[in-house]
Amino acid sequence: MPEAIIRLMTNKKPPQAAARPKAEPARQRHKAASEETYHGLRACEALFARRPEEIVRVYLTAGRKRHFARLLAWCAEHRRGFQVVEEENLRRISGATHHEGVAILAKAIRRWGLENLLTEVAAGRATSPILYLDGVENPHNLGSILRTAAHFGVTAVAGRAGELPPLSPAAVRVAEGAAETVPVCDLADPAAALRRLAAAGFAIIAASSHKGVSPEDVRLGGRCVLVLGSEGKGVSPAIERVATTRVRIPGTGAVESLNVSVACGVLLAEASRQRLAAVSGTRRRE
Amino acid sequence: MPEAIIRLMTNKKPPQAAARPKAEPARQRHKAASEETYHGLRACEALFARRPEEIVRVYLTAGRKRHFARLLAWCAEHRRGFQVVEEENLRRISGATHHEGVAILAKAIRRWGLENLLTEVAAGRATSPILYLDGVENPHNLGSILRTAAHFGVTAVAGRAGELPPLSPAAVRVAEGAAETVPVCDLADPAAALRRLAAAGFAIIAASSHKGVSPEDVRLGGRCVLVLGSEGKGVSPAIERVATTRVRIPGTGAVESLNVSVACGVLLAEASRQRLAAVSGTRRRE
Repeated sequence: MPEAIIRLMTNKKPPQAAARPKAEPARQRHKAASEETYHGLRACEALFARRPEEIVRVYLTAGRKRHFARLLAWCAEHRRGFQVVEEENLRRISGATHHEGVAILAKAIRRWGLENLLTEVAAGRATSPILYLDGVENPHNLGSILRTAAHFGVTAVAGRAGELPPLSPAAVRVAEGAAETVPVCDLADPAAALRRLAAAGFAIIAASSHKGVSPEDVRLGGRCVLVLGSEGKGVSPAIERVATTRVRIPGTGAVESLNVSVACGVLLAEASRQRLAAVSGTRRRE
Repeated sequence: MPEAIIRLMTNKKPPQAAARPKAEPARQRHKAASEETYHGLRACEALFARRPEEIVRVYLTAGRKRHFARLLAWCAEHRRGFQVVEEENLRRISGATHHEGVAILAKAIRRWGLENLLTEVAAGRATSPILYLDGVENPHNLGSILRTAAHFGVTAVAGRAGELPPLSPAAVRVAEGAAETVPVCDLADPAAALRRLAAAGFAIIAASSHKGVSPEDVRLGGRCVLVLGSEGKGVSPAIERVATTRVRIPGTGAVESLNVSVACGVLLAEASRQRLAAVSGTRRRE
């Protein structure tokens, strides 16, 4: 635990859950609207690493006590409740069979809006692709894409507000910690937002399973938005119209398309390769 | 339907299921040990396209009759039973909620052994990577990897006999038709098989999340075996010892590793890129 965080924390009054009178014990188990019970080893590790102050309560099996010794010490010091529970009980608390021995009740992960994205752009921090998911509605797919996005580095994963799925605890587990590091951004008017980014010099690159140039022929290493459509329908016409380039992953044609999360991996790997090549090219020139 | 197949078929006597006496109607519904009830749109399309003669019986919802008109005509002509059923009934027959309106009872997909693989190698047909899955035990992961493998083209997807999961109907659906085109190969002694391939000039390239060179620095476009380990444990020591090269997909380190099926996509995309570059290089030299 960094000293700074400990200092930051120790002056805080204990959170409500721990201070509540015994007459209302249910409050400790039921989450508030702004809270979620996350589960999964990497997801809970990342939550503790990135925003320990937002932890309300920790549940884990006896077998995980050693692995999470630092978390438990932190809970004791900062008056967060923690409870060693049976597998079966943890399944009930987390609502999941794949809980991996740990669950944390915490503030829900905050999502970005357009203003956050534009702040990043204005500050020159949008040096890796912005991913725009057009019609990807499955929470597991979002989780899986976040994991890939975290591996290769993206500025944010964006989608249409109300269409981009929630960061459900299951999606957060599938993301293997990535949901705590990759911003998820809801856009009320995606086409307008993409036009604004295009005007700011971003290439709007739409992936297609049937037309477009090869990934290595697209400037994926620069300022760009990479648009991935839903598996069945592809990129929607309204978003397609904003695209400045179309990219297609060459293949045998034996299957109609790649899984959206695999296509995302292939394209982000190419983006990452181009960025690394540009950096080593710059170094060579120095 | 190609004329050749129709000619091949019309002289065959009708299959047992259709010829059975009425006293044993259950036989028509229950599959024999060597049969499976596959489901899913692409999976059933591919089954019909690749091995119509192995179809025993077809079940579909009224909404799918038009889509599968050719299949139904073929069934009528070749005395295979088909039945229009309710959604609910199809769910029971296929044992799946994601049946996508169609299920086909057919001979189970045949798998390869080492001898089939060596025949391909001896015939010079192993020009795309052989994928070796070391400890990938989840049928869904196998299905997902088959889909990616079909897109980029592989010689076969191999694994340890008894460890590589079965091509369950759910895995076949996830493969989106690829289970009918990509051979799955069971190896009784994988390390010995890989040594034999290494002796025949194949590079044995093991993917690793922590060490190895970048994909573009590995000869993935040539004769090679690409080894992918299980997500938790990576490549096992016995297989690791046979590897001639290690490859690592560069990343930020924000997550421990990529999902095995995404890693497979990134590496096969690079293999495909190298093969295409070699072909266009040859063309340029001509």
